[in-house]
Amino acid sequence: MQQFDAIWVNANIATMTDNGAAYGAINNGALAVKDGVIAYIGNQAGLPAFDASSTLLYDAGEQWLLPGFIDCHTHLVYAGNRANEFEMRLNGASYQDIAAAGGGIKSTVAATRAASHQQLLALAEARLNALLAQGVTTVEIKSGYGLDLVSEQKILQVAADLNKQHAISIQKTFLGAHALPVEFADNADGYIDAVCKMLPVLKQLQLIDAVDVFCEGIGFSIAQCRKVFQHASALSLPVKAHAEQLSNLGGSALVAEFSGLSADHIEFLDEAGVAAMAQAGTVAVLLPGAFYFLRETQQPPIALLRQYKVPMAIATDLNPGTSPLCSLPLMLNMACTLFRLTPEEAILGVTRHAAAALGLADRGTLAVGQRADFACYAISQPAELCYQFGVNPLKQLIINGKEINHHL
Amino acid sequence: MQQFDAIWVNANIATMTDNGAAYGAINNGALAVKDGVIAYIGNQAGLPAFDASSTLLYDAGEQWLLPGFIDCHTHLVYAGNRANEFEMRLNGASYQDIAAAGGGIKSTVAATRAASHQQLLALAEARLNALLAQGVTTVEIKSGYGLDLVSEQKILQVAADLNKQHAISIQKTFLGAHALPVEFADNADGYIDAVCKMLPVLKQLQLIDAVDVFCEGIGFSIAQCRKVFQHASALSLPVKAHAEQLSNLGGSALVAEFSGLSADHIEFLDEAGVAAMAQAGTVAVLLPGAFYFLRETQQPPIALLRQYKVPMAIATDLNPGTSPLCSLPLMLNMACTLFRLTPEEAILGVTRHAAAALGLADRGTLAVGQRADFACYAISQPAELCYQFGVNPLKQLIINGKEINHHL
Ligand SMILES: [Zn+2]
Ligand SMILES: [Zn+2]
Repeated sequence: MQQFDAIWVNANIATMTDNGAAYGAINNGALAVKDGVIAYIGNQAGLPAFDASSTLLYDAGEQWLLPGFIDCHTHLVYAGNRANEFEMRLNGASYQDIAAAGGGIKSTVAATRAASHQQLLALAEARLNALLAQGVTTVEIKSGYGLDLVSEQKILQVAADLNKQHAISIQKTFLGAHALPVEFADNADGYIDAVCKMLPVLKQLQLIDAVDVFCEGIGFSIAQCRKVFQHASALSLPVKAHAEQLSNLGGSALVAEFSGLSADHIEFLDEAGVAAMAQAGTVAVLLPGAFYFLRETQQPPIALLRQYKVPMAIATDLNPGTSPLCSLPLMLNMACTLFRLTPEEAILGVTRHAAAALGLADRGTLAVGQRADFACYAISQPAELCYQFGVNPLKQLIINGKEINHHL
Repeated sequence: MQQFDAIWVNANIATMTDNGAAYGAINNGALAVKDGVIAYIGNQAGLPAFDASSTLLYDAGEQWLLPGFIDCHTHLVYAGNRANEFEMRLNGASYQDIAAAGGGIKSTVAATRAASHQQLLALAEARLNALLAQGVTTVEIKSGYGLDLVSEQKILQVAADLNKQHAISIQKTFLGAHALPVEFADNADGYIDAVCKMLPVLKQLQLIDAVDVFCEGIGFSIAQCRKVFQHASALSLPVKAHAEQLSNLGGSALVAEFSGLSADHIEFLDEAGVAAMAQAGTVAVLLPGAFYFLRETQQPPIALLRQYKVPMAIATDLNPGTSPLCSLPLMLNMACTLFRLTPEEAILGVTRHAAAALGLADRGTLAVGQRADFACYAISQPAELCYQFGVNPLKQLIINGKEINHHL
């Protein structure tokens, strides 16, 4: 007789593994959890005998179980908001007007620097709660609105504390090379040196899981990003980049050169870059919210990514400047609608491929030994999660084997 | 001493009236309710003396009060879902393939005809609950997935029953002339005659507040729509149209000719049509969800609508074929992002102008004598409601003077 903590029966399961079926589906399935991991998954008929007196038994009623969603690219620890700038722009203000009024990323940096740890924590918690209520169980959080050691540390510490306090599991990415702080105006090389010096300090504090850069004409050059990656690699920290969003600088190939986790945005990525990513096993993170919010017209090279079998992930890019959209299910719809991903590709993008973009091997699929992070949805087929938006079909959420009761 | 049922103090109030301030704003405001209507609204200092022992007192804590949102164009009573068709299309199926698999509006009509009153009610209720949780207090519901008298009556009866059972106030629009049912294949004129015969029957049953038509190359011609409007007008029923979405047939001018309530979609509307609408007082209902979902590129003529002072409303167009998006706040963001409306225009579009699109004079603004339908939001400025999406800022919702406690 096998010991389980809880069992779900009568379930349709989208395992998102390669089992030959679309979505890795198992019909008439059962899933058993023991000590926070999946102990059995498969046909209900194959479920081993178990001790019913010590096992929680759930009847999924033919609803669908899917892996907990993973939002692998967010900037969700920030203060201030840019509604005023949004309104000014729609009333015809120019970028100069907005800059003169203190707008743009500078305003977010100033507000985030001024905010206390506790204030940032409360703001971030509200955003995490919204994601949780929509089936998200793992979130990556980038720093990058501090731009000095003290403030970057504050942001990453908030992320670390949320990882302990909040049901959602959090990955911390250091994005010191996000923008040029006022202290280093006209001295980007000097700031990059400062970023490289922050790296070992923040690593020592266990505040970095990965290192990101904003590689763009309006961000940092390939040479500057390479320097950050060299320092990160010397510390054995995995790298990733905001790359090829507005132009094709070669940031994605640079990530591939460092065997990096992901290149994100990539609207202007060319075939050589796609090939380099395929070779390195680098994930393509698509951010349809920013594409939508900025009214971009250049599509990411989906056909090439498919051809070269580069895994595609989908994320919110939640941030106050270019994607103030705190909903991963909305990104599923936008990935299909705007980028023409299939629903299966989109759901892989917030499960298995999002896990890969974070270097996490213990989640993103439902299989024996994986973390028991999964959700139960009142849907008749997985594609519904991409097709419709607004009526939340989430019925139950399990993280690390534990049922989440609040916020649903 | 004045008698009130409830009072909100310490509020910022976006009255959406023409009081000279943006959003018709009142700072340091108070709002008092008596018998379901607004009895006082203005500066807190001007609040009359009242009997504190018999009055509920709420401190808004400098949060913002806005009129309850009005979704003035939905098709939310339907059965079935089109996720399968969505997935087929993204996997490369042609329209012929999808039609052969039973897809398209025909599948929604078949499922809706087959569904019981009780099934339709439950499906619609879930959609209304989602809207309610986002601050919506009035919803228009169109028929049009029945296409025969029995089924159209069933849909409108569900809407009428929801109006009684649900906290949201519902307006019922008869859209018999939505599509051609299989029974009338190749006989659109015959079906229009049938629609005209349904009108008095459904009116007699008090199931029609307004009459809508789908005036389009793939819908009904101007002559056919005119016939429906003539019958509607003879019964003193106000009219509106789905017009100029895919081509410029002149449906908006036809609505204006009948002094109709609204012309909806109107991406292809020309200046003559705008002028006709301005002359007639017809509202322009913009549907950015359908524009987004269909990846349309033709923008509605916003500049002309502004020039001619045609009021612009915003709605979800919630429907399973072209806008499966059950969120009016998302439409606020899309109206600004995709159509470049200002946040004030967008919020007018879901309050005052949406009320006008339904011919309702008792709501849509906050003023003495208006229905006490309003919401309290934890925001620092109204534009936030358009700028960010996903973290719900709704803190309190009042309909007809009563606080709604569930679903928030
Ligand atoms: Zn980003
Ligand atoms: Zn419609």
